[in-house]
Formats: sequence, structure tokens, C-alpha cells
Amino acid sequence: MTLLKSWVASANSAACPFPLNNLPYGVFSTGGDDPRCGVAIGDQILDVAAAEDAGLIDISEGPLFDVPFWNEVMEEGPELWAALRARLTEILAEGSADEAAAKDMLVSQAEAEMHLPFLVSEFTDFYASKNHATNVGTMFRGAENALPPNWLHIPIGYNGRASSVVVSGTDVRRPWGQLKGPNDDAPRFAPCARWDLELEMGAIVGTASDGPVTVAEADEMIFGYVLLNDWSARDIQAWEYQPLGPFQAKATATSISPWIVTKAALDPFRTDTPEREKELLAHLKDDGPMLYDIDLQIGLAPEGKDESIIARTNYSEMYYSSAQQLAHHSTSGCPMTPGDLLGSGTISGAEKDQRGALLELSWGGKEPIKLDTGEERSFLEDGDTLTLYGAAKGEGYMIGFGECAGKTLPALADPYER
Amino acid sequence: MTLLKSWVASANSAACPFPLNNLPYGVFSTGGDDPRCGVAIGDQILDVAAAEDAGLIDISEGPLFDVPFWNEVMEEGPELWAALRARLTEILAEGSADEAAAKDMLVSQAEAEMHLPFLVSEFTDFYASKNHATNVGTMFRGAENALPPNWLHIPIGYNGRASSVVVSGTDVRRPWGQLKGPNDDAPRFAPCARWDLELEMGAIVGTASDGPVTVAEADEMIFGYVLLNDWSARDIQAWEYQPLGPFQAKATATSISPWIVTKAALDPFRTDTPEREKELLAHLKDDGPMLYDIDLQIGLAPEGKDESIIARTNYSEMYYSSAQQLAHHSTSGCPMTPGDLLGSGTISGAEKDQRGALLELSWGGKEPIKLDTGEERSFLEDGDTLTLYGAAKGEGYMIGFGECAGKTLPALADPYER
Repeated sequence: MTLLKSWVASANSAACPFPLNNLPYGVFSTGGDDPRCGVAIGDQILDVAAAEDAGLIDISEGPLFDVPFWNEVMEEGPELWAALRARLTEILAEGSADEAAAKDMLVSQAEAEMHLPFLVSEFTDFYASKNHATNVGTMFRGAENALPPNWLHIPIGYNGRASSVVVSGTDVRRPWGQLKGPNDDAPRFAPCARWDLELEMGAIVGTASDGPVTVAEADEMIFGYVLLNDWSARDIQAWEYQPLGPFQAKATATSISPWIVTKAALDPFRTDTPEREKELLAHLKDDGPMLYDIDLQIGLAPEGKDESIIARTNYSEMYYSSAQQLAHHSTSGCPMTPGDLLGSGTISGAEKDQRGALLELSWGGKEPIKLDTGEERSFLEDGDTLTLYGAAKGEGYMIGFGECAGKTLPALADPYER
Repeated sequence: MTLLKSWVASANSAACPFPLNNLPYGVFSTGGDDPRCGVAIGDQILDVAAAEDAGLIDISEGPLFDVPFWNEVMEEGPELWAALRARLTEILAEGSADEAAAKDMLVSQAEAEMHLPFLVSEFTDFYASKNHATNVGTMFRGAENALPPNWLHIPIGYNGRASSVVVSGTDVRRPWGQLKGPNDDAPRFAPCARWDLELEMGAIVGTASDGPVTVAEADEMIFGYVLLNDWSARDIQAWEYQPLGPFQAKATATSISPWIVTKAALDPFRTDTPEREKELLAHLKDDGPMLYDIDLQIGLAPEGKDESIIARTNYSEMYYSSAQQLAHHSTSGCPMTPGDLLGSGTISGAEKDQRGALLELSWGGKEPIKLDTGEERSFLEDGDTLTLYGAAKGEGYMIGFGECAGKTLPALADPYER
């Protein structure tokens, strides 16, 4: 696969995250008008609500795009997804007969405000990078017990809070919570002092299930992927998580990038999960490449200062794919629904500078990292802007995700004051 | 408070679960027509969509009741909730001027099909009965470590799956899952062999929050209560729950009773949480009676046989109230939304026959219980119908919840066969 040329000139560069090969789906507005569906192309957005209204896109009985979410498209299923992508490619390709009509439906990304691209039905977060689980397990339970006994047999996950998912660019306020250090006599209620990020990919479930699905069926159900930062209060988590798992430590916010990159766009970058250390049970085995070769980076910019890239890793580092996670999620008969968001879990590579969370990068705060600006960080400080970047790199083109950014605001002085 | 008389004769009995004092909210249909909002009175349902349409109820700008959920009413907030209850009481009271008009809007409960009374936004389940936590902790971790160190300081909770919530009367199929006994070399994928219930109350969040709320504010936000059975696969749970909590073990189904009993109806039955063993931090202290005196029972009927009552307990056995749970849920800034369902956690009394789950009643299967029919049960068997009952008992009247029932269907022979 090489770069597909578009009549939108800005899309025809090897450095452009949104070439014709990509066509990711977002929800945008300009100047305070109603948010609606759009497709990124170069530095522009094609207003697909307008394109549908003008008859340029005509792939369904009723209108699909003049709404502030992509859930209705998701529910239609893979055939319509393919028809939409084919038609968008036709409209935006170099030499398209639709260029004149579509030109008026472009909106500059610089002038658009981006919104959450879909209604998040429910949010599940996994724990499926072996390097991450080993690092965190070593810190919390010692090297001997780093990986729980179940870890090599099932993609461990827990349910998160859909209401806390926000779009990139939303400021996130440092939370209060109940804290108790190992040497404290009693807990106290105070602002989180170990505020962290988690670098993840988010898989978006497009079609519903009503019973267990195979890994291959699960892969079919996935609509696309986003970058995801599962903000985490490590000190709240340490005190609350036994015996039923993380709760308020993960409920303040989860940020996602504004563009849903489709499975079709990522298809040339499919890659296998790593060799199994223990053979999986049949229902969790993948029968093809279910991960993707996506380069990922974490940028940290202190208030008013330049950004440092503090980690570089790749989505292919995961031990379990999103399809395997979704298959596991459905084993109990749990109904999966369009708009379910599945966080991959923190993605960490084997090397120290490939770790997807400050908890690991600073080894629980014992080895603060140095930023390019000379400052040190164990955890996030007020005013820090944290940005995730992701792109799959092809020959002369890339499939970019845009950014997943958020700035940490200081905790409220009194969280109960109105 | 004594019995309030209605012109609906069946409502005027001390044994009727739905007297004029109660007025619980449900969603019903008859003969396959569209589900809509209704209010139980005696053995009848007042079709409030019809009453609104005829101008008998006129409390809002737009229509509220010709929809299959009560979420729109919830979102309106406490003032409208009070106005609605006042108007319903007026319409249905003995001697009401509206009797003739309202009579035609009654539908017999015997002829109605009940649906989920609200759209469940998200579902959270707690672990907040001290007897239950002590029993389960003793079985899993020994008497010395029964209560986790955080238990007396925070109401421990975890996020569940809203998509799995079903209304009473829905059959529930025994799930498959990954199982590994302590003496097994490797896990296997098989039907759950330790299928259980959990007797709980469910609190329904009526109004949204966007930041931490106090316990008093949380109490104001609650719209009403239902009975809740959080079906649990104990063998799946034992293998999966470390380190991030229960996941597929709790995702097959959660059943709720079809009538939302309002906070106003329960108000005369408010009661205090038990004395604190350790003083709570200020933000979790309740400043009034936040629990309710509600008698609860569990009935178990083997296929084609009579039902045995296998446990009797009371909601006032909880260590934490729903208001305290909701306050804790919001500490991190987690946005709470109308339609959020909070399970109290299994409610167990101090005595053996007051325990709210078979896991406890049969002490992990070691002491099977005897049914009135002579059979024994350690966990649920295929064909068993499990029914929860609940009622607050006043002087000459009761506030009933109706039933929360579900029958266990056998596991599929091959869960992946279509």
C-alpha cells in the first residue's frame, strides 16, 4: 500500500496524519453551531452531514450524519461501513467528479472544535501488556508474584466509568480522594499526590452481541480505534483496590483522541500477538494478525514550557489484542453494545523509555525522570499538559490518530464548596 | 403514618403491596402495544401516559410519560417529583373528583407485561454489608483477614455492566467461563458450577452531579429504590478477580424488580446506619437516618416444586447507606448521571438464615441448605426460580416492592454454536 492521492492538496504528504488512506471519523462544530459528523482529510474536515444532505452520500434509508455521534453508523454494521469508506474515497480521490460539489463542504480543522466522536455506552479497561503488568506487579507484590496466576490465561479487565470519558483538549482537574500511606495510622481525605497517565489504545465496539463471540467475530464487531489516556490516581488506587479493583482512582477522567481511525485504514498494519508463553484455551486463540503496528509517544509539557517526549512504544507490544479482549468480555453472555469502549490497558515496551505510565517510568517515584527542560517528574504536576501521539507508518504515508491531550488543573481548595 | 384510602378498592388492604401510600413507578404494556409509564395502585396500574394526554396530569412543559422509561422524570428533579406524587395522590384518593376520569385509565396488573422501568446509564455494585463482607472474607482469606483494611473507612464498590440489567421475570442462562480450581493444573472453559444470587437493594440516581457531593446532597439525588439480584458465578469470580476485581462473574445478568419505590414513599421507614466501629472521615458521615427498615426475603423454587424461603433479612443491616455510597462514588469528580443504578451489595444479617447469598448460606458449598421440599442446595440448579421479596411495614399498611424473580436456564451445550 502506498499513498492514495486526493484533490485536497494538504492530504498528499508523507507527513500528513490524515491522507486519503485514513479517512477517520469525528464530530465537529464551528462557531458554536450544532456538532455533526465529519471526516478528516489533510488539514480539512469533510462535512458529511452536508454531503449527505446534498445527496453526495446516499448509502442508507434515513440520514446518518447530522447528529453529534457515529453510533448510528456503527449500528448499521460492516457492509455499510465498507460502502461509506468506498464512497468517501471516491469523492475525495484525485480526479473525482465530485470535487467541485465537495469543495464547498470542507471545513478547516484549524477553525473546528472537536467533540467526543461517539456516545460511550460503557467503558472497560484491560491490563494486557505483559511489560506493564510485570512492572506494576513487581512494584506492588514483588518480582516473584509480579504476574497474577490468571494473567497468561485471560485478558484481565475491569469495568470503568463511561460518564468520565472526555475528548482530547479537555482540562482534567486533579481529584481528591481517600489516601492512606503504608505508615499512616489512619486514612485522610486529600488531593491526589500521585497523579498519573496511562498510554492506551481504545477499541470501539460497532455492533451488538447477545452471547459469547469468537475472536474472529469480535474482530468483525470492532468499528475503529482511538488513542486513550486513562488518568489514574495511584495513591487513591493503592488504598481502595483490594478486594474489588480500582474505582475512584480511575473515575475522574479518561481522555480519547477525537478521530476514530477505522479498522479498514489500519488493515495494512496488522501484526500478530507475541508468542504465547502458555497455550490459550481455544475460545481465546486468535486465528490471524489482530494487533497493529502503531507507533506511540507520550509528550509532557510543563506549564508554559516546551514538551518532552518521555516515552516511545508500539501497540504491537500488547500480549492480548482488542479482539481477544472483546471475545473474553462476551464469554459470560454479557451483552456488548455499539459504543462500548475497550481500553487496551497501558502499553509498555521492554525498555525503560518505552513505559506507558509515570508509575513505571519513575519506578513508583523512586527514579524521577528528567525532562528536556531540566525539570524532574515522578508524577504529573499542576499545569502539565500530557499528550499522546500515534501513527501507523506506511510507505510514503502514515495513518495518524491526531492527539490525545489534557492539561492537569490544580485540585479544588474545598471540593464541596459551591 | 397509617393507610391512606383510595377509591381503587384493592389498594385499601394491609396486605396490599401498592396502597395509596406507595405509588411506585413502572413501565408496562398490554397486548403488545408500546411500553409506557404507569403507577401501581392496588392490583391496578394507572396509565399515566393516558392521564397526561387527557390533561389529568399537567406538571411539565412537554410530555413526560409516553416513553418506555422514567429517566425524563428523574432529570426534572425533586420539585417535579414532589408535584407528581402530590397530584397522583389527589387523583387516586378516596373521594377524588378525578375518579370517573381516571377509572378508564386503569389497567389490571394481571394483564400487563412489565419492562425495565428506566434506562440504566451505568451500574455500580457495592460490598457494604459487614456480615456479608466478613463471611465472604473469612471463606476466602481466613477469619484474621476477613475485612480488608479499607472496609471500615470507605464503601468498597466496583463498576458493573449496565447492559446486563434485566427486569424481573427474565430467564437467566447459566454462563460459561474460565474456571480453575485450587487443585487444577490449568484452567478450562466450562459452564459455571457455582451459580449464585445476591440479595441487594438498588438505588436509582435521579439527578446529575459534576463534582463531589456530600452525603446529604447524595440523598437528595436518589430517585427511588428497587430490589436487585446480582447473579454471580462464584467459580469464575474466584479465578478472575485478582488483581482488578470481578468481571465476567457478574456480567451475565442483574435482575431488578419492575417498580421504582420512591424515596417519599419510604420516608416513614428511615433508620440509622449502625454505630461506626471506626469514625468515618467527614465527607462520608451521614447527618440523619439514611437507611430504611425494609424486610427482605429470598424464595427458591426448584422446577415444578413449591418455593422455600431460604433467608430473611432487612435493608437496615447495611453498614453504609446508598447516600454514603453515592457520595463516595463522586469523590473523584466522577460525573453521576440520571439512571445510574447503585447496588447496595449483598445484605446479610448476623444469623445463618439471614444471609443474602448461597455462598454464605451453604458456607461455600460445605453446608448445603435444606429446602422445604426435602432437596438440598449448595448453589443454584438448572430450573430453579429465585425470587426476592421486599416490603416496609407500617401500621396497617405496607410499602411493597413487588417481586424480583428469575429462573436459571441450563448452560448452552456449545456457547459458540449459532
